[in-house]
Amino acid sequence: MHLHRILSFLWALRSPKFLLTKSSKRSASCSLSSFLFSTSVLASSPSSMASVSLDTINPKVLKCEYAVRGEIVTLAQALQEELKSMPGSHSFDEILYYNIGNPQSLGQQPITFFREVLALCDHPSILDKSQTRSLFSADAIKRARQILDQIPGRATGAYSHSQGIKGLRDTIAAGIEARDGFPADPNDIFLTDGASPAVHLMMQLLIRSEKDGILCPIPQYPLYSASIALRGGTLVPYYLDEAAGWGLEVSELKKQWADANSKGITPRALVVINPGNPTGQVLAENNQREIVDFCKKEGLVLLADEVGASQLFIRKMSMFLKRSSTSFKKVARSMGYGEKDISVVSFQSVSKGYYGECGKRGGYMEVTGFGPEIREQIYKLASVNLCSNISGQILSSLVMSPPKVGDESYESFSAEKDGILSSLVRRAKTLEDAFNTLEGVTCNKAEGAMYLFPCIRLPEKAIKAAEAVKTTPDNFYCRRLLNATGIVFVPGSGFRQAPGTWHCRCTILPQEDKIPAVVSRLTEFHRSFMEEFRE
Amino acid sequence: MHLHRILSFLWALRSPKFLLTKSSKRSASCSLSSFLFSTSVLASSPSSMASVSLDTINPKVLKCEYAVRGEIVTLAQALQEELKSMPGSHSFDEILYYNIGNPQSLGQQPITFFREVLALCDHPSILDKSQTRSLFSADAIKRARQILDQIPGRATGAYSHSQGIKGLRDTIAAGIEARDGFPADPNDIFLTDGASPAVHLMMQLLIRSEKDGILCPIPQYPLYSASIALRGGTLVPYYLDEAAGWGLEVSELKKQWADANSKGITPRALVVINPGNPTGQVLAENNQREIVDFCKKEGLVLLADEVGASQLFIRKMSMFLKRSSTSFKKVARSMGYGEKDISVVSFQSVSKGYYGECGKRGGYMEVTGFGPEIREQIYKLASVNLCSNISGQILSSLVMSPPKVGDESYESFSAEKDGILSSLVRRAKTLEDAFNTLEGVTCNKAEGAMYLFPCIRLPEKAIKAAEAVKTTPDNFYCRRLLNATGIVFVPGSGFRQAPGTWHCRCTILPQEDKIPAVVSRLTEFHRSFMEEFRE
Repeated sequence: MHLHRILSFLWALRSPKFLLTKSSKRSASCSLSSFLFSTSVLASSPSSMASVSLDTINPKVLKCEYAVRGEIVTLAQALQEELKSMPGSHSFDEILYYNIGNPQSLGQQPITFFREVLALCDHPSILDKSQTRSLFSADAIKRARQILDQIPGRATGAYSHSQGIKGLRDTIAAGIEARDGFPADPNDIFLTDGASPAVHLMMQLLIRSEKDGILCPIPQYPLYSASIALRGGTLVPYYLDEAAGWGLEVSELKKQWADANSKGITPRALVVINPGNPTGQVLAENNQREIVDFCKKEGLVLLADEVGASQLFIRKMSMFLKRSSTSFKKVARSMGYGEKDISVVSFQSVSKGYYGECGKRGGYMEVTGFGPEIREQIYKLASVNLCSNISGQILSSLVMSPPKVGDESYESFSAEKDGILSSLVRRAKTLEDAFNTLEGVTCNKAEGAMYLFPCIRLPEKAIKAAEAVKTTPDNFYCRRLLNATGIVFVPGSGFRQAPGTWHCRCTILPQEDKIPAVVSRLTEFHRSFMEEFRE
Repeated sequence: MHLHRILSFLWALRSPKFLLTKSSKRSASCSLSSFLFSTSVLASSPSSMASVSLDTINPKVLKCEYAVRGEIVTLAQALQEELKSMPGSHSFDEILYYNIGNPQSLGQQPITFFREVLALCDHPSILDKSQTRSLFSADAIKRARQILDQIPGRATGAYSHSQGIKGLRDTIAAGIEARDGFPADPNDIFLTDGASPAVHLMMQLLIRSEKDGILCPIPQYPLYSASIALRGGTLVPYYLDEAAGWGLEVSELKKQWADANSKGITPRALVVINPGNPTGQVLAENNQREIVDFCKKEGLVLLADEVGASQLFIRKMSMFLKRSSTSFKKVARSMGYGEKDISVVSFQSVSKGYYGECGKRGGYMEVTGFGPEIREQIYKLASVNLCSNISGQILSSLVMSPPKVGDESYESFSAEKDGILSSLVRRAKTLEDAFNTLEGVTCNKAEGAMYLFPCIRLPEKAIKAAEAVKTTPDNFYCRRLLNATGIVFVPGSGFRQAPGTWHCRCTILPQEDKIPAVVSRLTEFHRSFMEEFRE
């Protein structure tokens, strides 16, 4: 409950006694970084409203955890405020947010063509002005016109169909067909504000009670554990094999499935994250076929999180790694399984890959293998929130149909894209190598996603020190790292991990010119941490 | 379950037997409009996947209803397809969607200044180009720069803080302070993708089981009934008094509160929609004070849906109606109730008012009167979806700080705004008058929102005819209206209504040049409907 204490503290700063003078504010702020390790700064302050307290809110909310934006990030934000109000108060001068796959926050530039089209769709009245032709590329102008023609009344400020604008879904379906070589139906596409609402929707549909189980990889992206907890279901864990490059063994799936069944839990769906998050690995196609067969045999809905699956990044990586990523729908279809055989939902987002447009909240799911009466329910759930944001919808269509050879933007687009991808590959390699040189640390390759998930064998003394301040060893390590260097990683606990192992997740997104300094700070911190806790 | 049948039908169209020839497609399509009234077109088709059926999904999903996008809208979409593939197949040539407050879909133009700023924030690299100065107003360029400066790294493509970009929240809080004359804290603002996710978040926080009650007005906006159903809570209805212009009597609140209590249901929160939706009325300030006192006394969280509360529209309306709208937080503060006395959550959106930017999915809630430990839980729930879309965030700040006297855009902005508002007032008046001339129809004034909710006293014979086709009389009326005229209203059942009364919701958004035709079609339909079912 440390986050609670930080927030209580920040809350207390709002009360009049903290707002009397600048100096009192400063002294309050000064104590913040040390605050987490003190034992009794503030007693748990009572709720102002007796009617709403931790005892009377939905207990499922209390159970839900979301570490990617949890305690460590809150501490980082507080430190950032300190650095702003008191420059020089720490040995570092900025907070380096490597906790989250948020490329543009770390300097990655958006793809010009995409932004040109978005700007023109936002303000179509400039389309016919002569100056526009000198400010925007011809194919962006043409594309914006095409997209506007697909929107009823050319109204980008209107609610759309609850699944998203039909013309954009046509484009996306065509992109999926071209990618997979199997038909895709625009009526199977549901455009969403990023991938998260799509995941929540499917969990809401499937989970009736704690007797319903959802098979999830461990480690997993905490959206899944959070969403399952909020709906009162049971997360049935299956462990990825770290020693085998985070491999997914079907024998492990079968074991956990049987174990859940024996406890009276009915597994309803299997979550597969491919490429892995936080683990970064890409599944081999024969492994995917085994997974599809397992789902078919056990009647499980296959929830395929393919958000990280930017084909281009994987192709770049595969120059080194000889791996490619295939959509689960393609795998199922190539095995001869159609609509009637297996339910597959694929989640996609515009937040990752070379585009990295997190703030646009674009995404979609492709829903296949459900009967019309279930589709009706999925549509109803989508309609309760009316529709997803139109800019995100447009962007989702653009990433599935970028400029082609011969288009005015093609060369600059390709240069931007290749620049980002090549740089990501170099950064992944440098960071992975750096981790592997640290004492007691091993780190698998990032084969297809923007994350590394190194394993840290912490000394017994550090584990005891963590216990003494009532936290987990990985959390303890990440706090110390943050306070010493300003670097923000997410403790492995937030993703769950095999018992007795400790990890942290680090993105491969630090800009290249910063990487030497990051590596040197990390190395220095790790050395002194290990020294401090050596037995 | 008619919607189910329509979807089953559309689904069937996908199967190969319907796709052999164009003519078979046409004949399938031809039967659609009459399909709803036939008795056995398709038996309930079984799910393709035995593992997911109506019997095995979350029963709360089945219970949830959302009529604003329900059966009537699905039928309208099917008719629209028919009109496209077979022009002249109906006596009307377009579908008129007056079911939903979606102004730009009906021709309302976006405010130029807002769109200029959004376009520049989407594509900031044109800010320094000379042509930009001739395409965009100077204050839009200046505002875009200011906003970009408030975004870390000027990255509009990055995830923001989970509550939204701090600088934008500062602007919004300043706007609330200026509006209310009481302090507003940017840390109390949570920016969301439209208002709907904010409502879901609060319901998720408060509802533990069916023993938790949420007091809701009847009629209500169906987001509330849907959200409560999805979380398994109990909607405790309180009835608005139609005869008193949809007045809210505190005696009715007390009666329903006591009634719920006697059934073992604990009311947790009171939803007030002001201006009303679907009813359009504005509460008097002394009425608001009674409501605040009731919530304080009973320890209820006041969930104030103030989405429709475009102050400007209400001011325009009040030229006729002598009414104004005050925020519930302002009412509570002016009564001397502070943070420790009452929990008030205000929901806001950029979708309504003169801006009408539904497709941008911008909105926010202002959360006051909760202790830090509850705020931590609210923050955690917000963080699970990372953040709301940045364009929507920017727009939320713009509507709270539009151009001011002296800004280059001020005059054109004012002209656009006044043009829209004056037209809305005229349209509300014309449609209200039209309804009141229809036999058996009475319609209260739209005082502050873009809806009318006329009451239709249907003949007994029509009620019986509805029963015969297993639907409600208001649904029967709306279907007939749609099939005869192409006009889409929402049946009152979707909002719930006092037992034995029948209504429909109609927006005041038809463009002015279409209103004479709409009124004449509606009048003609109503006359012949009443003739057909006269006893």
